[in-house]
Amino acid sequence: MYIIMDKIKIGIIGYGNLGKSVEHGLRQNDDMELVGIFTRREAKSIKTLTGAQVFHIDDAKNMVDKIDVMVLCGGSMTDIPEQGPFFAEMFNTVDGYDTHAKIPQYYEAVNNKSLKGKKTSIISSGWDPGMFSINRLYAEAILPRGNTDTFWGKGVSQGHSDAIRRVSGVKDAKQYTIPIESAIEAAKRGEALDLTSRERHRRVCYVVAEDGADKNKIEDEIKNMPNYFADYDTEVHFISEAELEKNHRGLPHGGMVIRHGVTGLDNENNHTIEYKIDLESNPDFTANVIIAFARAAYRLNKEGSYGAKTVVDIAPAYLSRLSAEEIRKNII
Amino acid sequence: MYIIMDKIKIGIIGYGNLGKSVEHGLRQNDDMELVGIFTRREAKSIKTLTGAQVFHIDDAKNMVDKIDVMVLCGGSMTDIPEQGPFFAEMFNTVDGYDTHAKIPQYYEAVNNKSLKGKKTSIISSGWDPGMFSINRLYAEAILPRGNTDTFWGKGVSQGHSDAIRRVSGVKDAKQYTIPIESAIEAAKRGEALDLTSRERHRRVCYVVAEDGADKNKIEDEIKNMPNYFADYDTEVHFISEAELEKNHRGLPHGGMVIRHGVTGLDNENNHTIEYKIDLESNPDFTANVIIAFARAAYRLNKEGSYGAKTVVDIAPAYLSRLSAEEIRKNII
Repeated sequence: MYIIMDKIKIGIIGYGNLGKSVEHGLRQNDDMELVGIFTRREAKSIKTLTGAQVFHIDDAKNMVDKIDVMVLCGGSMTDIPEQGPFFAEMFNTVDGYDTHAKIPQYYEAVNNKSLKGKKTSIISSGWDPGMFSINRLYAEAILPRGNTDTFWGKGVSQGHSDAIRRVSGVKDAKQYTIPIESAIEAAKRGEALDLTSRERHRRVCYVVAEDGADKNKIEDEIKNMPNYFADYDTEVHFISEAELEKNHRGLPHGGMVIRHGVTGLDNENNHTIEYKIDLESNPDFTANVIIAFARAAYRLNKEGSYGAKTVVDIAPAYLSRLSAEEIRKNII
Repeated sequence: MYIIMDKIKIGIIGYGNLGKSVEHGLRQNDDMELVGIFTRREAKSIKTLTGAQVFHIDDAKNMVDKIDVMVLCGGSMTDIPEQGPFFAEMFNTVDGYDTHAKIPQYYEAVNNKSLKGKKTSIISSGWDPGMFSINRLYAEAILPRGNTDTFWGKGVSQGHSDAIRRVSGVKDAKQYTIPIESAIEAAKRGEALDLTSRERHRRVCYVVAEDGADKNKIEDEIKNMPNYFADYDTEVHFISEAELEKNHRGLPHGGMVIRHGVTGLDNENNHTIEYKIDLESNPDFTANVIIAFARAAYRLNKEGSYGAKTVVDIAPAYLSRLSAEEIRKNII
């Protein structure tokens, strides 16, 4: 007997790096199918990686019956804060909203709309926020007496690369965030609590200067940029456009969550929990996390669990294609 | 305004290493209180680490109104398979049942009884099964194209230590399981799939021989013991009883779950997810995981979610003392 399961029908809003990674990431999950990509640009102007159909974003509201989960792939700065609540009332949604400080208010905005529409929205998935949040929560619950530290990198920070590109005389740039080994070791011993930003991460910049630009001035401006670089030891390397293209084209990233805690009658036993990721493509990995949570959103909505949720509100089993029986037999 | 919250009332069945670790682990969680420890031995004969009350195990059934969650700390070989279903009908329970191959049938037995009693039972928590199971599931859901490997150690295997102690002429022994570095590195590259047991872990034994025992014969018998040692490179070191007591008294353990997976249009991007723990006390850490899941069992039962569950059926937030608002503000 064959059981023909309906595939989960996915829509993608926004066709930048993340949208493209969701597009091909979906091909790894044969319980899902991509209905289309929605963009603010002219649909005809876009050629997709996999031949997926493209629609104008204004057409999404006419396709509520054709899409089970809408994946929001716009930017966290301006796109998602507006699109999240807007689409949450008509679709189940998943996003990777990553402005940590504004997550509480974003949650409220999405929750109101998704409850109203009897939809399910999972916000702030990806890896940080996302898998790192999950690991911070588990680790703190297991080792209540302890300290948690998060490190990022080695990897490309898009925000810092963009900041360098805004410096006058800079043609292009890539910035790598690199965790400092001695800080990681201190975190494993529970001794990183008082370390400064400078002691935790360093920043390495590869900069293509415009012809005739004052490199000393550029370097000085980068190193003293508040918030982005002033609090870190920053290296600036000037390279050619060809070298940037050849050696720094990718978007690798990674990082780790470390918790050290103590147990025992007199706190005599030390324990370290470490969750570490090493990624050749930041957008691909982020997309794959979001896709797994799209499966969860679909299932939760079928069960009548409406409203906005964060990643820690979702039982891990909802992310897996495996049945409960298979999980008990092969995973537990 | 003060809100006086009722503490979660905990009982412990079994007072071995794990029961003792749960006893003092509970003191790290001030939303819980220990009602008592239940034993098959004569209650009066037991002096507890923290002054906790001791009852005979037969008295548990008269205390169903006094205990919110019963933590089962007996052995997985004979105690838990019997006690799990028995207590699941009268109490919410949590256990660390770790006979992987029998988890499906144990689940069924517990589920039938806990549904009947409208109780909630979380089975096979701890770290493997437990946190490692959770991490295997997440990692496979995120990277569907990939391989997962689990390594154990460096740490003391109680089962292997016991096996050595059963060899004629052996007075006492400790066995350390040690993962092989080259296998870990291969796993991070996704190339460990075909490695044999011997290529993944090695075993180091510290043995106290009885006076006049034939050490060559003991060493030979250990190294050729089927299932336990024959498939591994095993070192046997004979040491004095004093040295064993001085240097090998603890129960450290640890291990890691590694998943390598690929993404991209042509599987061109490599990713590695690693969850690693390093524990000075195996029973303390196991107890702390179980305690966090006891909190979840209590909450799920209050919500009317009855029956047996495994760790992947529980949303991470149920393990934490933090409120949903605090989690969104500080953890996500």
